[in-house]
Amino acid sequence: MCHNGVNGLVHIYNPHLEGASDDHLYHFGISRATTDIPAVFGDVKFVCTGGSATRIAMYAKLFAVEANLPLSENLSKSDRFCMFKTGPVLWVNHGMGTPSLSIMLVEVIKLLHYANATDTVFIRMGTSGGIGVNPGTVIVSTGALNGMLEESYVQYIMGKKVNRPTKVDPKLASELVETAKELDVPVDSGLSLCADDFYEGQGRLDGAFCEYSTEEKFAFLRMLRDEKNVMNFEMESTCFAALTHRAGARAAIVCVTLLNREEGDQVKVSHEEYLEFEMRPFRLVSAYIKERI
Amino acid sequence: MCHNGVNGLVHIYNPHLEGASDDHLYHFGISRATTDIPAVFGDVKFVCTGGSATRIAMYAKLFAVEANLPLSENLSKSDRFCMFKTGPVLWVNHGMGTPSLSIMLVEVIKLLHYANATDTVFIRMGTSGGIGVNPGTVIVSTGALNGMLEESYVQYIMGKKVNRPTKVDPKLASELVETAKELDVPVDSGLSLCADDFYEGQGRLDGAFCEYSTEEKFAFLRMLRDEKNVMNFEMESTCFAALTHRAGARAAIVCVTLLNREEGDQVKVSHEEYLEFEMRPFRLVSAYIKERI
Repeated sequence: MCHNGVNGLVHIYNPHLEGASDDHLYHFGISRATTDIPAVFGDVKFVCTGGSATRIAMYAKLFAVEANLPLSENLSKSDRFCMFKTGPVLWVNHGMGTPSLSIMLVEVIKLLHYANATDTVFIRMGTSGGIGVNPGTVIVSTGALNGMLEESYVQYIMGKKVNRPTKVDPKLASELVETAKELDVPVDSGLSLCADDFYEGQGRLDGAFCEYSTEEKFAFLRMLRDEKNVMNFEMESTCFAALTHRAGARAAIVCVTLLNREEGDQVKVSHEEYLEFEMRPFRLVSAYIKERI
Repeated sequence: MCHNGVNGLVHIYNPHLEGASDDHLYHFGISRATTDIPAVFGDVKFVCTGGSATRIAMYAKLFAVEANLPLSENLSKSDRFCMFKTGPVLWVNHGMGTPSLSIMLVEVIKLLHYANATDTVFIRMGTSGGIGVNPGTVIVSTGALNGMLEESYVQYIMGKKVNRPTKVDPKLASELVETAKELDVPVDSGLSLCADDFYEGQGRLDGAFCEYSTEEKFAFLRMLRDEKNVMNFEMESTCFAALTHRAGARAAIVCVTLLNREEGDQVKVSHEEYLEFEMRPFRLVSAYIKERI
C-alpha cells in the first residue's frame, strides 16, 4: 500500500503498483527501469506548472538565471508535455483543460513518489478571465468550483460519478498574497471557476454557439462574484486542487487575469501588456521559491 | 442569425456575432480584421485533426508530398495549437481531452464559417486503447459515449448541465472502413468511450490512485464490449462528434489502438511498431481524401 503522505512523501494509493519492478510514464517517455528516478528527481521541492509549453520553458530559463541554478535539457521524451529542472524546482506544462492536466499530474505524482521526494509544493501559474477586477490582477485561488458551482472535481470511474474535494493550502495561498504585495504585483484572492470550455462554459458571447442573452451572461457573472466569491475563470483548478490534495501535497493556483469579463469577452491587451501580465505569476512565485531554497 | 448549415456552409449559431466587424480567434492569433479569411480558408473541404502537434505537422508534410500540393507555413500565431494547410485540407492539432479540443473546434468552426467554406468534412485521427482487438487495429467510430456511458457530450452552461448528441456520419464511417479494407489496414468499427482522464477514467490499474480491483476492471471492459459495443477508449470523441454535428458538418473519428486493454494497461509496442501504427489512420484518411479532391 504505497501510502506515504504522512512522512512528507508524495502520496500515491494504488495496491496494484506494489512490488512492480518497472513503470513507464507514457506521456513523458520516462521509465523506472531505464532512469534512476531518485537520483534525478529526489531533490524536487517545487513543481511549477502552467498550460503553455513555451511559457513554462521561458519561466524555467529565467529562473535558472535568476537563481543561478543549472537548467536541465527537456527531460520529457514525448511531445505531449515539456519538463525542465532547475535544482529543486521542476517545470512542467499541462496543456489546456482538466483531462490534459490530469495526465501530467498523475505521472508527475508517480514520478516524485518513486523519487522519494519530500515536502513537495505544487504551484499552477496560469492566465484567466477576471470578474470585477482590473486586467493584470493576479488571483491566488482559495478554492475551485466546477461547472455545477460545487467545490468538487468530478471523475467518471467504471460508469459511476465520483466527487473529489478541491482543497488548496490556505497558508500557502496567504504567503503568496503577501509576497505579491511586497513586490507591488496587483493581487486578490477568492474562488476560481474551472470551466470545461472557453466559450459557453465561461458565459462568453463570442463562441460559435450561444443560446443565452447578454443579460443572462451579466446576471451569471454578478451571481458568481456576489454570492459565490468567484474571482476568475480558468480551466484546470478543480483537477489540480483535487489531485494534489489526494497526493498529500500542498498546492496553490496563481493566475493573472487578462481581461475583466464584466467589460467584454475578447482578450484585448496589447502584446507588450500581455508579456508583462504573463510575467506576474512568475515574478511572485519565483520570489517566493527563491526565499525558500 | 448566422444559421447556414442548410446550404453547405459550416454552421454557427450566435446572434451576438451578427454584424460584428471583427473577431479575434484567440488561440490561433487570427483576426477577421487583419486576415482575409475567405481568401485563405474559403477552399477548405477537409479538416484533419489529432492530439499531437508533432504528428499533425508530420501528416501535413507527408500529405503535401503525396498529393503534390504546397504546404503552408504554420498558420497559427499562438503556441496553443499548430495549423497547416495543403490546398483544400487543413491540419490542426487539438491537444488532449475535450476542453482543449473544444477550444480548437469552436475557433475552427468560426474560421470556416467566416471563410464561407462549404461541404467541409472533419476527421479526427488519434491513438486509443482497444478492447478485445489486436494492437494496430484502426477503429472507425460509429458513435461516442461519455463517462456515464451515455451518447452525449455534457456541457455546463451558467451552472446548468446541458447534453448534446454525439452523432457521427454513418456513410462517411462506412466509406472509411471500405478504404481501410482496400489498403489492407486492419480495421473495425463500433462505439468509442471518451474518458476525461487516462487512468481511473479508463479503468487502468497503473495510475497514481486506484480504488478498484483487477476483477472489477475486467468486468467493466467485458461489459463495455459485450453490452455496449465499445471498441476503444480515447479522450475527445464526444466533444468532436457533438460540435461538428452542431455545425452541420460531416465528421469521422479514426483511431488506431496501441494496445488491447484486455491484456494490459501499459503501451508496450516497440518504437518501430509505434511509428507504423501511428501512420495507419493517416494512410487510410489520406487515401480517402486524395480520391475526393
